[in-house]
Amino acid sequence: MEQAEKILNGDVRAAARLIRDIDDGIPSSRQVVKALYPHTGKAYVIGISGFPGVGKSTLVDQMIQEYRAAGKSLGVIAVDPTSPFSGGAMLGDRIRMQRHGTDPEVFIRSLATRGHFGGVTRSTHSIIDVLDAMGKDIILVETVGVGQDEVDIVTTAHTTIIAMIPGMGDDIQAIKAGILEVADIFVINKADREGVEKTINELRTMLEMSCREDSNDKWHPPIVPTEAIRNRGVPDLLSQIEAHKDFLFNRGREYLKERLRKRAFKDLTDTVKETVIAGIMQQLESSESFQGMIDELAEKKTDPFTLCDQIMEVFYAQKEKS
Amino acid sequence: MEQAEKILNGDVRAAARLIRDIDDGIPSSRQVVKALYPHTGKAYVIGISGFPGVGKSTLVDQMIQEYRAAGKSLGVIAVDPTSPFSGGAMLGDRIRMQRHGTDPEVFIRSLATRGHFGGVTRSTHSIIDVLDAMGKDIILVETVGVGQDEVDIVTTAHTTIIAMIPGMGDDIQAIKAGILEVADIFVINKADREGVEKTINELRTMLEMSCREDSNDKWHPPIVPTEAIRNRGVPDLLSQIEAHKDFLFNRGREYLKERLRKRAFKDLTDTVKETVIAGIMQQLESSESFQGMIDELAEKKTDPFTLCDQIMEVFYAQKEKS
Repeated sequence: MEQAEKILNGDVRAAARLIRDIDDGIPSSRQVVKALYPHTGKAYVIGISGFPGVGKSTLVDQMIQEYRAAGKSLGVIAVDPTSPFSGGAMLGDRIRMQRHGTDPEVFIRSLATRGHFGGVTRSTHSIIDVLDAMGKDIILVETVGVGQDEVDIVTTAHTTIIAMIPGMGDDIQAIKAGILEVADIFVINKADREGVEKTINELRTMLEMSCREDSNDKWHPPIVPTEAIRNRGVPDLLSQIEAHKDFLFNRGREYLKERLRKRAFKDLTDTVKETVIAGIMQQLESSESFQGMIDELAEKKTDPFTLCDQIMEVFYAQKEKS
Repeated sequence: MEQAEKILNGDVRAAARLIRDIDDGIPSSRQVVKALYPHTGKAYVIGISGFPGVGKSTLVDQMIQEYRAAGKSLGVIAVDPTSPFSGGAMLGDRIRMQRHGTDPEVFIRSLATRGHFGGVTRSTHSIIDVLDAMGKDIILVETVGVGQDEVDIVTTAHTTIIAMIPGMGDDIQAIKAGILEVADIFVINKADREGVEKTINELRTMLEMSCREDSNDKWHPPIVPTEAIRNRGVPDLLSQIEAHKDFLFNRGREYLKERLRKRAFKDLTDTVKETVIAGIMQQLESSESFQGMIDELAEKKTDPFTLCDQIMEVFYAQKEKS
């Protein structure tokens, strides 16, 4: 595996090509990730999520700055599963982080697609593995929005950060109990705005009301006010991340083990799903009868379940022959 | 199919039970939807999407009111794929629409889950089919957020509405070219707020810049300002929906055909994916070696691709035997 070796030796162009291949769903990328896999597990992965407009990219930009000042190397992935077509919105984010573009110790990539058959979570995990194998100390994964994909992505991180802004009011409701349960640290960015105390209090109340499984003798998620654009509060955020890391590797070791097991389950089942679905889709799209089936269905001459039964019969008959 | 007949005869409790079964992924629900399928295709489906906080539920509530005044029966589905756990945020929405709760011609359901192996899109399509078979004139599908799932859901509607509010500024960026391309009508709700003209102008500019495939001789999406809470602009919105319906069934007939074909493709492939994945997941979870595989993977003793290859061998060997 020439490409894998190059990446292990720090070849940025080889890594960039592999990441593009993973993002594009090129099958050969699997073998390279497989070869890199034994070299992973050393990086510390931090996930950052939150609604658009809370200033996540500025926050990530300042975190990069702080980690670089501390001598850490970084891999940064901006995942945007809400953009099914052009992915145009990432452009602004890329520009915001551009000052780190010439730093060889910072490797930034945006994922525009939502992944292929295994979903964006599968692609993102593979790309985290690539950055990990490259020897990056810290991997920052930024996601746009707070949907299920984003939750899946960020909860596989060591430390999950949810960013919000003051005065979200009803929108805190929209952040939902589910997000409250997965966040390790909350950031209230743009903390110079009115209503920051109110937002912190509301959030604290919601946290106390929610039944976090791990809340008794374990980690209590801190709420960190920041003004990322003025770099205020970002050093405090990094201290809280360090405290959470310390928790995970000491008191919270069983909890960390459980998280790694969950990620392993998801990685394996997503890989299996991706493989099975890629197989059947390939067979479907090369089948002569498939387009006719779609036409019949569009005209309501049949239903998807009847067609599915027919396809299953052919699929397994084919497999038996092969 | 006793349950299917009951639903066709307007039995609301039978319909509610089926919808719950679909939402819970109960396999037997498939057969009932299959029996209902020939009775679908008559309802007009309207999708409404937009970020949390733009007032979608109030808008939907007023639309129900207007359609009822015009003598139409309605099915309303509120889909919330961003809520992986408790789905608590829907509660407020349900309360907002409660005044229609005693009207037998209005059937409202919230989907809390994100669907099962076929995803929330598959479940939502089946539930649209149920409401359609019940004989509802209009089906309103409201989704929270603007992710890929939401796009998939609303673009299968006849008319897709994207709701926003004035002064979203940067967030219009976040709405992305992708959403611009799929919307048939834009609503600027809370139009009494400052900046409504600016938002309309920004949106108009973005629409002109975006290369909508169908923009030359076809549909030009109107921008409708509303104050749903005071019912201002909602009758105008309904007129625009009517105009779009008229377009689809006349000048845009080829375009409508293409949309129905896309929905058929998605329905069939999602059903196939759901079936294949359900089969393999059942086999995996009942297999003795699966838990050991997860442990090995969590400890990085192997990689997901090697394990996947092993699983594939066993899977197809099993299928050949059966």
